[in-house]
Amino acid sequence: MRELSVKTESKILLLILDGLGGLPMDPSGPTELEAADAPSFDALAARSDLGLSLPVAAGVSPGSGPGHLALFGYNPLRHVVGRGVLSALGVGFDLGENDLAARLNFATLDESGKISDRRAGRIPSEKGTQLVELLNENVALDGVETFVTHEKEYRAVAVFRGEGLSDSLADSDPQRVGLEPLPVKPTDHSPEAERSAALANAFVDQANEILRDQHPANTVLMRGFGMHPALPSFEEIYELDAAAIASYPMYKGLARLAGMELLKEGEGIAGEFETLRENWDHHDFFFLHVKPTDAAGEDGDFGRKAAVIEEVDAQIPDLLDLGPDALAVTGDHATPAKLKSHSWHGVPFLLSSPYTLPTAESFGERACAGGSLGAFPAEEIMGLLMGHALKLNRYGA
Amino acid sequence: MRELSVKTESKILLLILDGLGGLPMDPSGPTELEAADAPSFDALAARSDLGLSLPVAAGVSPGSGPGHLALFGYNPLRHVVGRGVLSALGVGFDLGENDLAARLNFATLDESGKISDRRAGRIPSEKGTQLVELLNENVALDGVETFVTHEKEYRAVAVFRGEGLSDSLADSDPQRVGLEPLPVKPTDHSPEAERSAALANAFVDQANEILRDQHPANTVLMRGFGMHPALPSFEEIYELDAAAIASYPMYKGLARLAGMELLKEGEGIAGEFETLRENWDHHDFFFLHVKPTDAAGEDGDFGRKAAVIEEVDAQIPDLLDLGPDALAVTGDHATPAKLKSHSWHGVPFLLSSPYTLPTAESFGERACAGGSLGAFPAEEIMGLLMGHALKLNRYGA
Repeated sequence: MRELSVKTESKILLLILDGLGGLPMDPSGPTELEAADAPSFDALAARSDLGLSLPVAAGVSPGSGPGHLALFGYNPLRHVVGRGVLSALGVGFDLGENDLAARLNFATLDESGKISDRRAGRIPSEKGTQLVELLNENVALDGVETFVTHEKEYRAVAVFRGEGLSDSLADSDPQRVGLEPLPVKPTDHSPEAERSAALANAFVDQANEILRDQHPANTVLMRGFGMHPALPSFEEIYELDAAAIASYPMYKGLARLAGMELLKEGEGIAGEFETLRENWDHHDFFFLHVKPTDAAGEDGDFGRKAAVIEEVDAQIPDLLDLGPDALAVTGDHATPAKLKSHSWHGVPFLLSSPYTLPTAESFGERACAGGSLGAFPAEEIMGLLMGHALKLNRYGA
Repeated sequence: MRELSVKTESKILLLILDGLGGLPMDPSGPTELEAADAPSFDALAARSDLGLSLPVAAGVSPGSGPGHLALFGYNPLRHVVGRGVLSALGVGFDLGENDLAARLNFATLDESGKISDRRAGRIPSEKGTQLVELLNENVALDGVETFVTHEKEYRAVAVFRGEGLSDSLADSDPQRVGLEPLPVKPTDHSPEAERSAALANAFVDQANEILRDQHPANTVLMRGFGMHPALPSFEEIYELDAAAIASYPMYKGLARLAGMELLKEGEGIAGEFETLRENWDHHDFFFLHVKPTDAAGEDGDFGRKAAVIEEVDAQIPDLLDLGPDALAVTGDHATPAKLKSHSWHGVPFLLSSPYTLPTAESFGERACAGGSLGAFPAEEIMGLLMGHALKLNRYGA
């Protein structure tokens, strides 16, 4: 890709409806997407290449991290991104390549030193912000800088910055109440992991001291240690000036890993599309992420998931007025209401450009199963978009 | 898979109709499966994911070994299993990781030392058993133990047990009558291969002496040298307690390579399904192998192959009463009656679970070609089954 990509005027849009893929509740019934009254998606499908995109591996349900890495063209098995890294990027922390990040939960220790609440009574965000400030003012570790950033309610992110760190560390969160927090242990025998474990444990000790009188938030649990994966950026691989519109921290974080600029999104789905229109002239690649499809699927709410799809459908005419040269609509994985969770199923995929081979009159899982792209790895989506936008040179003479 | 697999109560059944895939005799006609009157398979297809499974590589017709390795989730190009190994496992020999196995044919040498019959007049099994005993009592090789096990009629298996052996050896069987047997030659220059060749030739020399008066079975031909491939077991990879029901030695052998327990099968196809029912409570994975589809295809008997499919179809209602959580029906390869041999074509594949996207009302090659799974590597079947049985954790955050 790096060798073939060329800078052109054409514009690409990758529209992700999180967890778009669905299943029929009964074998003969429609999926969420098939049930949705989505005339604009259907009209688009009738001039698009269709297929089912496969996020990670057969039978494997991906988390949002691997799901998005694949959408962005990175092999999700080769590139592993720790949860702490996603959280750090999501809150806008400028994570460097030497930084070690971990998720932090404020939690409650009882008098015997056991965890009585892993979420500190779900303290409000204002309280969380104050506690984060307290930690930032008072924690001091040998040889590394420490940054704590508030995420939401009882959740925060800790970053250690310094040479010679490692993310080969196990969580301190025992995942159950009534147990003592675990000391952070290295998961390999490298000196970097030993040192990083010692730093993490010193951090927890100091936090316990600082938070002593802050019941119910009188301790922190650390989990999801991770270091920046140092992915090559969209600029480097595709010569794209890429921008991202997403309302949730994790998806902003994923976009930043690929070197995308984060655009300040408006309110709700309509607001995200408004942001797209406002910024259309300033970038040649846009990633627009819609979250509520996934949330509805996780809730098992077939009707609400279809309604979110309809809400996005209503934005499509204005979107097409912008004139994207290549437009893909898909999800990072399936979240069938029937399963109430992420799943391994193929995700409906549509690619609209002047150079397509349409095969159906509607956008849905079954129409996509019979499409010209067949079932294909999601990792190939970026190549398809680049090709359809005429941004790739011929390979070979 | 190893990291994601979890032990649950759910049960998986992999039902293999050997050589299931077929072709129309005329382009507009039906395949064997399409022609079969198989109402239970059709009803199952209407609530299943469909696809065409591809055993090894485009255009490549697999033997039973690679075909089954792929079904069991092992890459059939990376893991090579010698025919001798399959035979040894098939007769129930407890092959160890240092053991070198080869197939043995009793054959006839004429007075000039040339082979006049490669199958020794197809001696009956009783005679074969006696000759194997003679060899076991009288062969003695330096530095290795030797085990000869009778297979059927003129066929047996020889195993050399000892350190430092190699299967880089060419057959002694010249594959034609009227020629002298070949000395076993090493196919690389390793000391292990040189030593193993010398042992094999010493074995043939001793056998010639021992069998001198046993005309027509007065020599042995050695072929298909192989060593145990040391595959990780189903228990290790998938945390499955797997059992196999197969009536032919080779398929038992293949199942043993994957660490499956062999269940004593009843008579014929109905007997195999009876064995399944009897053992249903004792395992969480079952491989049930039906052979006669392949045999009919090899004979070019389109009608008989369809009739075997109908015979299996009649077992499906009782099978479904067991309530498998994930059920796959497919073949290890195609054996179209039109070709009278194994072929490279995609094999009809059906996966039934509560979490499917049905796309057709019948089970057949063309219905499968339009299915939601598309054409996909057979190596992915185990992942799909594990996913549909909800036995895989999510990958990544």
